[in-house]
Amino acid sequence: MEIPANEKAAILAQALPYIKRYAGKTIVVKYGGAAMVNEGLRAAVAEDLVLMAAVGIRAVLVHGGGPEIDSMLRRVGKEPVFVGGLRYTDEETMEIVQMVLAGKVNKDLVGLLGRAGGKALGLCGLDGGLLSAARMGKGGAAGGQQSDLGLVGDIRAVNADVLRRALDGGYVPVVATVAGGLDGDPNSYNVNADTAAASIAVALGAEKLVLLTDVPGILRDLGDSGTLIKEMPRSGIEALVREGILSKGMIPKVECCARAVDGGVGRAHIIDGRVPHALLVELFSDAGIGTMIS
Amino acid sequence: MEIPANEKAAILAQALPYIKRYAGKTIVVKYGGAAMVNEGLRAAVAEDLVLMAAVGIRAVLVHGGGPEIDSMLRRVGKEPVFVGGLRYTDEETMEIVQMVLAGKVNKDLVGLLGRAGGKALGLCGLDGGLLSAARMGKGGAAGGQQSDLGLVGDIRAVNADVLRRALDGGYVPVVATVAGGLDGDPNSYNVNADTAAASIAVALGAEKLVLLTDVPGILRDLGDSGTLIKEMPRSGIEALVREGILSKGMIPKVECCARAVDGGVGRAHIIDGRVPHALLVELFSDAGIGTMIS
Amino acid sequence: MEIPANEKAAILAQALPYIKRYAGKTIVVKYGGAAMVNEGLRAAVAEDLVLMAAVGIRAVLVHGGGPEIDSMLRRVGKEPVFVGGLRYTDEETMEIVQMVLAGKVNKDLVGLLGRAGGKALGLCGLDGGLLSAARMGKGGAAGGQQSDLGLVGDIRAVNADVLRRALDGGYVPVVATVAGGLDGDPNSYNVNADTAAASIAVALGAEKLVLLTDVPGILRDLGDSGTLIKEMPRSGIEALVREGILSKGMIPKVECCARAVDGGVGRAHIIDGRVPHALLVELFSDAGIGTMIS
Amino acid sequence: MEIPANEKAAILAQALPYIKRYAGKTIVVKYGGAAMVNEGLRAAVAEDLVLMAAVGIRAVLVHGGGPEIDSMLRRVGKEPVFVGGLRYTDEETMEIVQMVLAGKVNKDLVGLLGRAGGKALGLCGLDGGLLSAARMGKGGAAGGQQSDLGLVGDIRAVNADVLRRALDGGYVPVVATVAGGLDGDPNSYNVNADTAAASIAVALGAEKLVLLTDVPGILRDLGDSGTLIKEMPRSGIEALVREGILSKGMIPKVECCARAVDGGVGRAHIIDGRVPHALLVELFSDAGIGTMIS
Amino acid sequence: MEIPANEKAAILAQALPYIKRYAGKTIVVKYGGAAMVNEGLRAAVAEDLVLMAAVGIRAVLVHGGGPEIDSMLRRVGKEPVFVGGLRYTDEETMEIVQMVLAGKVNKDLVGLLGRAGGKALGLCGLDGGLLSAARMGKGGAAGGQQSDLGLVGDIRAVNADVLRRALDGGYVPVVATVAGGLDGDPNSYNVNADTAAASIAVALGAEKLVLLTDVPGILRDLGDSGTLIKEMPRSGIEALVREGILSKGMIPKVECCARAVDGGVGRAHIIDGRVPHALLVELFSDAGIGTMIS
Amino acid sequence: MEIPANEKAAILAQALPYIKRYAGKTIVVKYGGAAMVNEGLRAAVAEDLVLMAAVGIRAVLVHGGGPEIDSMLRRVGKEPVFVGGLRYTDEETMEIVQMVLAGKVNKDLVGLLGRAGGKALGLCGLDGGLLSAARMGKGGAAGGQQSDLGLVGDIRAVNADVLRRALDGGYVPVVATVAGGLDGDPNSYNVNADTAAASIAVALGAEKLVLLTDVPGILRDLGDSGTLIKEMPRSGIEALVREGILSKGMIPKVECCARAVDGGVGRAHIIDGRVPHALLVELFSDAGIGTMIS
Repeated sequence: MEIPANEKAAILAQALPYIKRYAGKTIVVKYGGAAMVNEGLRAAVAEDLVLMAAVGIRAVLVHGGGPEIDSMLRRVGKEPVFVGGLRYTDEETMEIVQMVLAGKVNKDLVGLLGRAGGKALGLCGLDGGLLSAARMGKGGAAGGQQSDLGLVGDIRAVNADVLRRALDGGYVPVVATVAGGLDGDPNSYNVNADTAAASIAVALGAEKLVLLTDVPGILRDLGDSGTLIKEMPRSGIEALVREGILSKGMIPKVECCARAVDGGVGRAHIIDGRVPHALLVELFSDAGIGTMIS
Repeated sequence: MEIPANEKAAILAQALPYIKRYAGKTIVVKYGGAAMVNEGLRAAVAEDLVLMAAVGIRAVLVHGGGPEIDSMLRRVGKEPVFVGGLRYTDEETMEIVQMVLAGKVNKDLVGLLGRAGGKALGLCGLDGGLLSAARMGKGGAAGGQQSDLGLVGDIRAVNADVLRRALDGGYVPVVATVAGGLDGDPNSYNVNADTAAASIAVALGAEKLVLLTDVPGILRDLGDSGTLIKEMPRSGIEALVREGILSKGMIPKVECCARAVDGGVGRAHIIDGRVPHALLVELFSDAGIGTMIS
Repeated sequence: MEIPANEKAAILAQALPYIKRYAGKTIVVKYGGAAMVNEGLRAAVAEDLVLMAAVGIRAVLVHGGGPEIDSMLRRVGKEPVFVGGLRYTDEETMEIVQMVLAGKVNKDLVGLLGRAGGKALGLCGLDGGLLSAARMGKGGAAGGQQSDLGLVGDIRAVNADVLRRALDGGYVPVVATVAGGLDGDPNSYNVNADTAAASIAVALGAEKLVLLTDVPGILRDLGDSGTLIKEMPRSGIEALVREGILSKGMIPKVECCARAVDGGVGRAHIIDGRVPHALLVELFSDAGIGTMIS
Repeated sequence: MEIPANEKAAILAQALPYIKRYAGKTIVVKYGGAAMVNEGLRAAVAEDLVLMAAVGIRAVLVHGGGPEIDSMLRRVGKEPVFVGGLRYTDEETMEIVQMVLAGKVNKDLVGLLGRAGGKALGLCGLDGGLLSAARMGKGGAAGGQQSDLGLVGDIRAVNADVLRRALDGGYVPVVATVAGGLDGDPNSYNVNADTAAASIAVALGAEKLVLLTDVPGILRDLGDSGTLIKEMPRSGIEALVREGILSKGMIPKVECCARAVDGGVGRAHIIDGRVPHALLVELFSDAGIGTMIS
Repeated sequence: MEIPANEKAAILAQALPYIKRYAGKTIVVKYGGAAMVNEGLRAAVAEDLVLMAAVGIRAVLVHGGGPEIDSMLRRVGKEPVFVGGLRYTDEETMEIVQMVLAGKVNKDLVGLLGRAGGKALGLCGLDGGLLSAARMGKGGAAGGQQSDLGLVGDIRAVNADVLRRALDGGYVPVVATVAGGLDGDPNSYNVNADTAAASIAVALGAEKLVLLTDVPGILRDLGDSGTLIKEMPRSGIEALVREGILSKGMIPKVECCARAVDGGVGRAHIIDGRVPHALLVELFSDAGIGTMIS
Repeated sequence: MEIPANEKAAILAQALPYIKRYAGKTIVVKYGGAAMVNEGLRAAVAEDLVLMAAVGIRAVLVHGGGPEIDSMLRRVGKEPVFVGGLRYTDEETMEIVQMVLAGKVNKDLVGLLGRAGGKALGLCGLDGGLLSAARMGKGGAAGGQQSDLGLVGDIRAVNADVLRRALDGGYVPVVATVAGGLDGDPNSYNVNADTAAASIAVALGAEKLVLLTDVPGILRDLGDSGTLIKEMPRSGIEALVREGILSKGMIPKVECCARAVDGGVGRAHIIDGRVPHALLVELFSDAGIGTMIS
């Protein structure tokens, strides 16, 4: 490394105010996209989370795993089916979803964090009743003629006790977004990972929700990264939607941020997971990165 | 129910000495066989564990899941291969083993315990560095010309901190027997569930290790259940092996019991998981059930 | 016992929901009548209390001891005198009351619980200032021309700290209903045990007050046990009194229950102490026993 | 009071080193004799104990009550019988002993301490299994032809948990010297109060055992209080006995002191309970009072 | 000492109610005047504070040190300058003030308390951000044409965490009245010790504020100590000022007391530090000493 | 800053292993020389200590202050006198030493750390009996005819309780090297700061002792910084002294390191305080800085 040791030390010293600001605070990270697929980025995310834990941040990692699910479905001879952007989830699909998310993606991440020097705990929504969901309603939010999606669930209850205990013990909880049923319903449900992350952030009274995405943040003009909105109030979201500035993929993410802020989370961030160490850049520098909604 | 309420109350009162004896003690249960496959037995095991937790027993459930692994392997077009009774585990098989054990069997058990009124936490050996293993040695214990089994591991280290915290919080830890590698080795390993249960029992200083099996215990004459050995000292095991009394399937189970007792576990039990509520019968009655080694 | 072990285990498993419901809750039992005189019933009550403590219930036993007091008075040559159902208590009588309740009945119960495997602590209202009373007023509740009863007291203050500490330590407090005076008054007072139990239940924020009596509960027709009122709201009590359904002996017991419920106790029960293990039947079965007021 | 306030303040200031020395230490006081009978002395002892508790001393009061037992026995028409200085204790006598000690003397002391501003807890050896005894052996320590004394017991086990909890809660435990039986033996036993105090002091690892007596301490010449032995090593006791210097009544007291010191108690004191505030004089002045054995 | 030991013990016993009343309570003592200069009085104050700590009082000592500052200023060749009774404090003076108060007076007191058997901790307002001040405003409280006093400060914030921790650890905090600046202001400020004591008493929710002065208390007629006002309500202060009864030096002291009482301190006392053991006389006798405002 | 944010983040990530290694460990820093005089270096040291505290290091700062003492002595008209490198310390000098170290240098450092965002607590050896010393012996270590140095002390006892409590509370203790006397000796003593730091490091069982000096470390050839000894075993020190490699000023520093390592401190470092952020460079980089003795 060509940067001399004392300059590095000066950089560490510059991080001090941020370290102090976030010590003891809870930060929920929704993990996905390129940062989850690219090996170098994966390693950097693991380092970032372990560093966050080391300086006293209570970090929670929430993940989905669409590509791995698709690939496993195909291995057992099922073609993935999507309806209005949501995965059609029959019982067989759900079995695969649970296995892949809770058994493969989740535990692989736990192992990765462990090798990076952290202590991680792999959970899904069934553990300690963390996430309970009901079948997503026909004629639900999107109104009109909604197709049946099978075992896709809406989160109805969060019991964060298991997360708090893990965080108290110095563990980084890694959460696969599979939820249990309500009141004795024995089904598992496939729940949206952004929404799960927002619900968990609210339940924990988190300081921040950070969504790692494959875009630089909210752009006024999708084609021009110079139009990044660095900061916006939660109250400005409706206008953005109305004005048609938000892309179709961005709308649910922004709505998650809104839900988190409405639930008492201090700040929600949409950041670019393709930037190495994007989490540390966001947390430990003046400039931050991506779009902050508060 | 034909048994009148006050007779039931008398039965509860009779359980008192056992409840008092085990309160605060750790009991590790290796779960497998019929008790895991038959739905009624599964429900009874769940009730038993939740009751154990309710009366203050620190219960840990350790499980494998051979049949589910075989079935999933076949769904992806792989025929299960066994060498000397052990599963040949190439990387693709290991991926399936981890997914099925940690993502399906484990989380399904967690859900079942939750619906029975308990608080369960589904873990595998990767979580919090619980189980670390090394590739089973060529020219190992069985001596002679041992075939390479791939990612089958011998447990080398147990870090039970994550279990202790879960038990302190009133959770029943449910452990899938997948282990991590040592010193940065990124592989996961397939480890024997009986051995894992014994190792965990030793690490926790458990009062009891209970192996739920499909036999009544150790029989002097396999064909005659009247020849059940109810109790035997650990020192008597070598003689039994020498005399050829133990069946081939029983030998590794008895060796696990020996290892547990040698490691300081108070008592090891081989009991008949086909009997409903076999755990409660063993724990809360004078007679006990199966074979006790101490 | 002719009931096979696994059926017994099933019965234990059935008790699970009740065990879970009451764990950590406080239950105050007023002990008296046949259950205190009959040796077999006494032993069963002791077992019940020790079991309750073993499964995490915070149980408090409150007792009087009329027959033993009468017998001791006669041994010192005094004939017991009652006025309007209340014991006339001159100083000499009070000395005997205190000795018999706090020194004999109380400590004998403590010994009995100890031999049943429990840890009990024998207290009276003087210990740690638990119960403070003032002389029952002339022209008091019953109105009209009330005779002077001597050192019979009305409870004016309860300091439950000593009970809470005993319960925290896993002890079953056994309370003899002798109260101290207020503000330096050196007299001890004879207080009603039902009332004392209700006052203690209120002070501890108990979940339940259970009065062990010699009747099946509140009967609409005293001669017909088929007319048992299994459940009634606290608001229904006044009507019962007005309609003359309650016997003279039952009225003060029901009023105690009303006072307890008014003071925040969840439920008050009048149950039949002549049934062996009546406490366990009440707590750990669907049917319950006797009359519940809530 | 003729002593001016600032001189009193100076006296308080002089007590400082003693207050500091004993803060947090355990002191077991055997209470008896004139200090228990005389009303003024009783009040002073109560004040002393409450002050000791207030300055952080963990004080335990152990008492017998011979005169009150005799008087009660006579009220029920039994003449007290003594054999070799020990009370012959048949079952009826034991019943009276327990009632008088645990129900009258003990609870009256608790009330007295309460009115003096303290928090006291009245216990006997049955509570929490504090003292367990076996029938005093025929052909026991004194050898030769020993008469049967009935339910007179030798202490065999002390479970001081209940005392420690009471002391932790800021209570002064007051202990009546009635012991329970061993291993299910339902008898209560009459045990010597000096011995009980010594056993309790050993079990608690007390700093001091103080015996309040009706003599100035150990005198070389019984008739001359100028021959008081102020301090002596435990090793000097045998010589004193051999030389016949100890009176018959003093020998068992001195032996109790020896037993306490042998069991790890720092110092044992025989002091004159007829001196008002003898405890404070002993604890909080240079001179001390009576005889100290260490 | 001519007072016999048991009379001393009786005096101790008389102090009991006061010891009990103040145990666990916080008492802030402003130390100054003769009691700080006279060696015998200094020793007595040290004894008093150590005794207070020994009987469980949470005592805080706050001090100034005018004479020592004057003397040191003269040693470096500066003549002390006062404007309207307040020290003109240029930077060089402030340096001396801080050194003398925090380095000499404070640490000498800590040593004195240590030699008297206590555990003391010497702090100033900079430690742990205990006292933050802003430059005393021009045109401030005294109105009109106020001269600039340099680094004389008004206390604006108190962070008592460091005091609470010290008290929890059994230490007597000794506080030199030097304050830090606000918001990065690197100056130290000279603050009035009476005011600092009152602010600290309010921040700690103290039971009492005691000002040790060189007068007997508030006198209706300064020349006649028989006109001492022993007790007065806080509401009576304005009238006293209006009527011109308070001397010029007494007015700020009384205003401090008012501020303390307004801020929730139970009682404020102005007592005569020239009386040996004045603190103990005030705390541990019926009569008290000086003037109490509540 | 020209270094881009994500490169800074990478540098933070590189610090991770060091942060993890030292979290919860105690590091005692002896502060002096240029790093204490130069304003920019002082600010960097303050930042370093606050960062160390923020990442969970239990940091203790020990300082002397020769130049400030000299300057103050001159202001009061005394010329500093040194004998054999040690300050001749008469009573008047000692008064100045204490005032300057504990009142000026110490509290100024506390203020500096506070403004850098830390919580610091300024102590000297008198506080809580932290350091007790005896007058340095005539005919002491240096042998021969040693002159009397006045109130120069050898540390004889360290009571680190006050430091542990401060560290537990998240404070950085800043210690001025003035010690109290032993056994009632009312003198304060001037003690060597390197020695005090070593004694404190031993008493706290520190992981590291770091001496901030004005040299690059131990050089084989004083004129050639390329001859820096980066690492050496404690056992090699005697040889270095014998060979005359160590300069006169370096010998006592190396002896302090030896004493620390002998007392159980993991590693002792002599580093160059003239390098900005030297502490962070030492702690958080592979290369380290200066000479390490272990």
